[in-house]
Amino acid sequence: MALPRQRVTLITLGVGDLTRAEAFYRAWGWTPHPASQDGVRFYQMQGAVLGLFGLSDLAEDQGRPDAVLGTGAMTLAQNMSSPAEVDRVFDDGLRAGAVALKQPQAVFWGGYSGYLADPDGHVWELAHNPYWPLADDGSLTLPASD
Amino acid sequence: MALPRQRVTLITLGVGDLTRAEAFYRAWGWTPHPASQDGVRFYQMQGAVLGLFGLSDLAEDQGRPDAVLGTGAMTLAQNMSSPAEVDRVFDDGLRAGAVALKQPQAVFWGGYSGYLADPDGHVWELAHNPYWPLADDGSLTLPASD
Repeated sequence: MALPRQRVTLITLGVGDLTRAEAFYRAWGWTPHPASQDGVRFYQMQGAVLGLFGLSDLAEDQGRPDAVLGTGAMTLAQNMSSPAEVDRVFDDGLRAGAVALKQPQAVFWGGYSGYLADPDGHVWELAHNPYWPLADDGSLTLPASD
Repeated sequence: MALPRQRVTLITLGVGDLTRAEAFYRAWGWTPHPASQDGVRFYQMQGAVLGLFGLSDLAEDQGRPDAVLGTGAMTLAQNMSSPAEVDRVFDDGLRAGAVALKQPQAVFWGGYSGYLADPDGHVWELAHNPYWPLADDGSLTLPASD
Protein backbone atom coordinates (compact mmCIF):
# COMPACT_ATOMS: atom_id res chain seq x y z
CA MET A 1 0.00 0.00 0.00
CA ALA A 2 1.46 3.33 -1.00
CA LEU A 3 2.00 5.93 1.69
CA PRO A 4 0.06 9.20 1.48
CA ARG A 5 1.73 11.58 -0.94
CA GLN A 6 1.01 14.69 1.13
CA ARG A 7 3.67 14.26 3.80
CA VAL A 8 6.74 15.91 5.25
CA THR A 9 8.40 13.55 7.72
CA LEU A 10 11.74 15.33 8.16
CA ILE A 11 12.61 19.03 7.95
CA THR A 12 16.37 19.60 7.85
CA LEU A 13 17.91 22.97 8.68
CA GLY A 14 21.42 23.52 7.36
CA VAL A 15 23.46 25.27 10.06
CA GLY A 16 26.88 26.89 10.08
CA ASP A 17 27.71 25.85 13.64
CA LEU A 18 25.89 22.86 15.08
CA THR A 19 26.83 23.71 18.68
CA ARG A 20 25.44 27.23 18.32
CA ALA A 21 22.29 25.98 16.62
CA GLU A 22 21.66 23.29 19.23
CA ALA A 23 22.17 25.87 21.99
CA PHE A 24 19.66 28.22 20.38
CA TYR A 25 16.99 25.54 20.00
CA ARG A 26 17.63 24.24 23.53
CA ALA A 27 17.19 27.75 24.93
CA TRP A 28 13.96 28.04 22.92
CA GLY A 29 12.63 24.85 24.51
CA TRP A 30 13.71 22.09 22.11
CA THR A 31 15.34 18.90 23.46
CA PRO A 32 17.33 16.65 21.09
CA HIS A 33 16.17 13.07 20.73
CA PRO A 34 18.58 10.35 21.95
CA ALA A 35 18.70 9.09 18.34
CA SER A 36 20.77 12.18 17.50
CA GLN A 37 24.28 11.32 16.37
CA ASP A 38 27.57 13.09 15.80
CA GLY A 39 27.00 15.90 13.35
CA VAL A 40 23.22 15.82 13.43
CA ARG A 41 20.49 16.62 15.93
CA PHE A 42 16.92 15.32 15.70
CA TYR A 43 13.83 16.70 17.45
CA GLN A 44 10.60 14.72 17.62
CA MET A 45 7.46 16.64 16.64
CA GLN A 46 3.89 15.34 16.04
CA GLY A 47 4.51 12.60 13.48
CA ALA A 48 7.50 14.35 11.96
CA VAL A 49 11.07 15.29 12.88
CA LEU A 50 13.12 18.49 12.74
CA GLY A 51 16.82 18.00 12.08
CA LEU A 52 19.91 20.21 12.36
CA PHE A 53 22.78 19.34 10.02
CA GLY A 54 25.92 21.18 8.98
CA LEU A 55 25.27 23.45 6.00
CA SER A 56 28.29 22.20 4.07
CA ASP A 57 27.35 18.59 4.84
CA LEU A 58 23.82 19.32 3.61
CA ALA A 59 25.13 20.91 0.43
CA GLU A 60 27.39 17.91 -0.19
CA ASP A 61 24.43 15.61 0.45
CA GLN A 62 22.47 17.56 -2.20
CA GLY A 63 25.40 17.28 -4.59
CA ARG A 64 26.14 21.00 -4.92
CA PRO A 65 28.19 23.79 -3.30
CA ASP A 66 26.94 25.31 -0.04
CA ALA A 67 27.28 28.82 -1.48
CA VAL A 68 24.09 28.29 -3.49
CA LEU A 69 21.97 27.38 -0.47
CA GLY A 70 19.80 30.15 0.93
CA THR A 71 17.17 30.67 3.57
CA GLY A 72 13.90 32.50 4.02
CA ALA A 73 11.87 31.45 0.98
CA MET A 74 10.69 28.43 2.96
CA THR A 75 9.29 29.38 6.35
CA LEU A 76 8.20 27.29 9.31
CA ALA A 77 5.25 28.31 11.43
CA GLN A 78 3.96 27.42 14.84
CA ASN A 79 0.27 28.14 15.21
CA MET A 80 -0.63 29.21 18.73
CA SER A 81 -3.80 29.22 20.83
CA SER A 82 -3.86 32.97 21.42
CA PRO A 83 -2.10 36.24 20.59
CA ALA A 84 -0.67 36.20 24.12
CA GLU A 85 0.97 32.84 23.45
CA VAL A 86 2.43 34.23 20.20
CA ASP A 87 3.96 37.10 22.18
CA ARG A 88 5.35 34.80 24.84
CA VAL A 89 6.99 32.31 22.46
CA PHE A 90 8.29 35.16 20.26
CA ASP A 91 9.92 36.81 23.27
CA ASP A 92 11.35 33.45 24.35
CA GLY A 93 12.88 33.17 20.87
CA LEU A 94 14.53 36.59 21.11
CA ARG A 95 15.92 35.72 24.54
CA ALA A 96 17.33 32.50 23.03
CA GLY A 97 19.17 34.54 20.39
CA ALA A 98 16.78 34.90 17.46
CA VAL A 99 16.56 38.09 15.40
CA ALA A 100 13.15 39.76 15.16
CA LEU A 101 12.04 40.27 11.55
CA LYS A 102 8.50 41.48 12.30
CA GLN A 103 7.08 42.08 15.73
CA PRO A 104 3.85 40.17 16.39
CA GLN A 105 0.89 42.23 15.24
CA ALA A 106 -2.66 41.96 13.97
CA VAL A 107 -2.53 41.07 10.26
CA PHE A 108 -4.78 41.40 7.24
CA TRP A 109 -6.12 37.85 7.24
CA GLY A 110 -7.69 38.32 10.64
CA GLY A 111 -5.01 36.75 12.80
CA TYR A 112 -1.93 37.79 14.76
CA SER A 113 1.57 37.01 13.54
CA GLY A 114 5.26 37.74 13.99
CA TYR A 115 8.44 36.53 12.29
CA LEU A 116 11.91 35.81 13.66
CA ALA A 117 15.09 34.29 12.27
CA ASP A 118 17.24 31.70 14.00
CA PRO A 119 21.05 32.18 14.16
CA ASP A 120 21.41 30.68 10.66
CA GLY A 121 18.69 32.80 9.08
CA HIS A 122 15.97 30.16 9.05
CA VAL A 123 12.65 31.94 9.34
CA TRP A 124 9.92 31.05 11.84
CA GLU A 125 6.46 32.54 11.96
CA LEU A 126 4.54 32.51 15.22
CA ALA A 127 0.86 33.01 14.57
CA HIS A 128 -2.60 32.84 16.01
CA ASN A 129 -5.26 32.05 13.43
CA PRO A 130 -8.73 32.23 15.00
CA TYR A 131 -10.15 30.20 12.10
CA TRP A 132 -7.75 27.27 12.60
CA PRO A 133 -8.37 25.41 15.87
CA LEU A 134 -5.50 23.27 17.17
CA ALA A 135 -5.68 19.79 18.67
CA ASP A 136 -4.58 19.26 22.25
CA ASP A 137 -1.20 17.99 21.06
CA GLY A 138 -0.75 21.19 19.06
CA SER A 139 -1.23 19.60 15.66
CA LEU A 140 -3.23 21.33 12.91
CA THR A 141 -6.04 19.93 10.78
CA LEU A 142 -7.69 22.38 8.42
CA PRO A 143 -11.40 22.94 9.08
CA ALA A 144 -13.95 21.95 6.46
CA SER A 145 -14.64 24.91 4.23
CA ASP A 146 -17.95 26.74 4.42
CA MET B 1 -1.96 24.70 29.17
CA ALA B 2 0.91 25.59 26.89
CA LEU B 3 1.19 23.77 23.58
CA PRO B 4 4.25 21.58 22.95
CA ARG B 5 7.20 23.70 21.89
CA GLN B 6 8.52 21.14 19.39
CA ARG B 7 6.04 21.75 16.60
CA VAL B 8 5.80 22.86 12.97
CA THR B 9 2.16 23.29 12.00
CA LEU B 10 2.60 25.16 8.71
CA ILE B 11 5.41 25.05 6.17
CA THR B 12 5.14 27.88 3.63
CA LEU B 13 6.94 27.75 0.28
CA GLY B 14 7.44 31.10 -1.41
CA VAL B 15 6.77 30.68 -5.14
CA GLY B 16 7.32 32.91 -8.15
CA ASP B 17 4.21 31.74 -9.99
CA LEU B 18 1.40 30.24 -7.95
CA THR B 19 -0.29 28.65 -10.97
CA ARG B 20 2.94 26.90 -12.01
CA ALA B 21 3.62 25.77 -8.45
CA GLU B 22 0.09 24.42 -7.95
CA ALA B 23 0.34 22.56 -11.27
CA PHE B 24 3.63 20.98 -10.24
CA TYR B 25 2.33 19.80 -6.86
CA ARG B 26 -0.92 18.57 -8.43
CA ALA B 27 1.04 16.53 -10.97
CA TRP B 28 3.13 15.12 -8.09
CA GLY B 29 -0.03 13.99 -6.31
CA TRP B 30 -0.94 16.91 -4.03
CA THR B 31 -4.55 18.16 -3.88
CA PRO B 32 -5.27 21.63 -2.48
CA HIS B 33 -7.59 21.84 0.51
CA PRO B 34 -10.90 23.67 -0.03
CA ALA B 35 -9.76 26.19 2.60
CA SER B 36 -7.27 27.50 0.01
CA GLN B 37 -7.97 31.09 -0.97
CA ASP B 38 -6.94 33.53 -3.66
CA GLY B 39 -3.17 33.82 -3.63
CA VAL B 40 -2.51 30.87 -1.35
CA ARG B 41 -2.82 27.09 -1.54
CA PHE B 42 -2.98 24.79 1.49
CA TYR B 43 -2.32 21.04 1.58
CA GLN B 44 -3.31 18.93 4.58
CA MET B 45 -0.60 16.60 5.87
CA GLN B 46 -0.52 14.52 9.12
CA GLY B 47 -1.25 17.17 11.74
CA ALA B 48 0.41 19.93 9.76
CA VAL B 49 -0.13 21.91 6.57
CA LEU B 50 2.01 22.78 3.54
CA GLY B 51 1.28 26.18 1.98
CA LEU B 52 2.20 27.83 -1.33
CA PHE B 53 2.34 31.63 -1.25
CA GLY B 54 3.75 34.23 -3.63
CA LEU B 55 7.44 34.90 -2.94
CA SER B 56 7.02 38.67 -2.97
CA ASP B 57 3.95 38.38 -0.72
CA LEU B 58 5.96 36.20 1.65
CA ALA B 59 8.84 38.67 1.67
CA GLU B 60 6.44 41.51 2.39
CA ASP B 61 4.87 39.43 5.16
CA GLN B 62 8.35 38.97 6.66
CA GLY B 63 8.98 42.70 6.37
CA ARG B 64 11.92 42.53 3.96
CA PRO B 65 12.68 42.48 0.22
CA ASP B 66 12.17 39.25 -1.72
CA ALA B 67 15.68 39.48 -3.16
CA VAL B 68 17.11 38.31 0.17
CA LEU B 69 15.04 35.13 0.30
CA GLY B 70 16.77 31.95 -0.78
CA THR B 71 16.11 28.23 -0.94
CA GLY B 72 17.92 25.01 -0.30
CA ALA B 73 19.35 25.46 3.18
CA MET B 74 16.07 24.12 4.58
CA THR B 75 15.04 20.84 3.01
CA LEU B 76 11.87 18.79 3.25
CA ALA B 77 11.99 15.02 3.27
CA GLN B 78 9.52 12.27 2.68
CA ASN B 79 10.60 9.02 4.28
CA MET B 80 9.51 6.00 2.29
CA SER B 81 8.89 2.35 3.03
CA SER B 82 11.44 1.00 0.56
CA PRO B 83 14.12 2.01 -1.95
CA ALA B 84 11.67 1.09 -4.72
CA GLU B 85 9.14 3.60 -3.37
CA VAL B 86 11.88 6.26 -3.29
CA ASP B 87 12.60 5.57 -6.96
CA ARG B 88 8.92 5.68 -7.90
CA VAL B 89 8.11 8.96 -6.14
CA PHE B 90 11.37 10.52 -7.37
CA ASP B 91 10.50 9.63 -10.96
CA ASP B 92 6.97 10.95 -10.46
CA GLY B 93 8.53 14.23 -9.32
CA LEU B 94 10.71 14.50 -12.43
CA ARG B 95 7.70 13.81 -14.64
CA ALA B 96 5.83 16.58 -12.79
CA GLY B 97 8.62 19.03 -13.63
CA ALA B 98 11.13 18.79 -10.79
CA VAL B 99 14.88 19.03 -11.38
CA ALA B 100 17.00 16.12 -10.20
CA LEU B 101 19.78 17.23 -7.85
CA LYS B 102 20.99 13.76 -6.83
CA GLN B 103 19.71 10.50 -8.20
CA PRO B 104 18.49 8.11 -5.52
CA GLN B 105 21.38 5.98 -4.30
CA ALA B 106 22.65 4.04 -1.31
CA VAL B 107 24.15 6.53 1.15
CA PHE B 108 26.68 6.47 3.96
CA TRP B 109 24.19 6.32 6.83
CA GLY B 110 22.83 2.99 5.66
CA GLY B 111 19.78 4.19 3.77
CA TYR B 112 18.80 5.17 0.23
CA SER B 113 18.20 8.79 -0.76
CA GLY B 114 17.73 11.21 -3.64
CA TYR B 115 17.19 14.95 -3.92
CA LEU B 116 15.11 17.01 -6.32
CA ALA B 117 14.12 20.66 -6.57
CA ASP B 118 10.63 21.97 -7.30
CA PRO B 119 10.16 24.70 -9.96
CA ASP B 120 11.02 27.40 -7.40
CA GLY B 121 14.16 25.68 -6.14
CA HIS B 122 12.68 24.24 -2.96
CA VAL B 123 14.55 21.06 -2.15
CA TRP B 124 12.93 17.73 -1.36
CA GLU B 125 14.71 14.60 -0.22
CA LEU B 126 13.11 11.23 -0.84
CA ALA B 127 14.63 8.65 1.44
CA HIS B 128 14.34 5.17 2.83
CA ASN B 129 15.81 4.81 6.30
CA PRO B 130 15.72 1.18 7.42
CA TYR B 131 16.18 2.27 11.04
CA TRP B 132 13.12 4.56 11.05
CA PRO B 133 9.84 2.63 10.71
CA LEU B 134 6.83 4.63 9.52
CA ALA B 135 3.28 4.48 10.85
CA ASP B 136 0.48 3.38 8.51
CA ASP B 137 -0.45 7.02 7.88
CA GLY B 138 3.14 7.73 6.84
CA SER B 139 4.04 9.73 9.93
CA LEU B 140 7.43 9.35 11.61
CA THR B 141 8.18 8.78 15.28
CA LEU B 142 11.84 8.25 16.13
CA PRO B 143 12.63 4.87 17.68
CA ALA B 144 13.95 4.66 21.23
CA SER B 145 17.73 4.70 21.13
CA ASP B 146 19.71 1.61 21.99
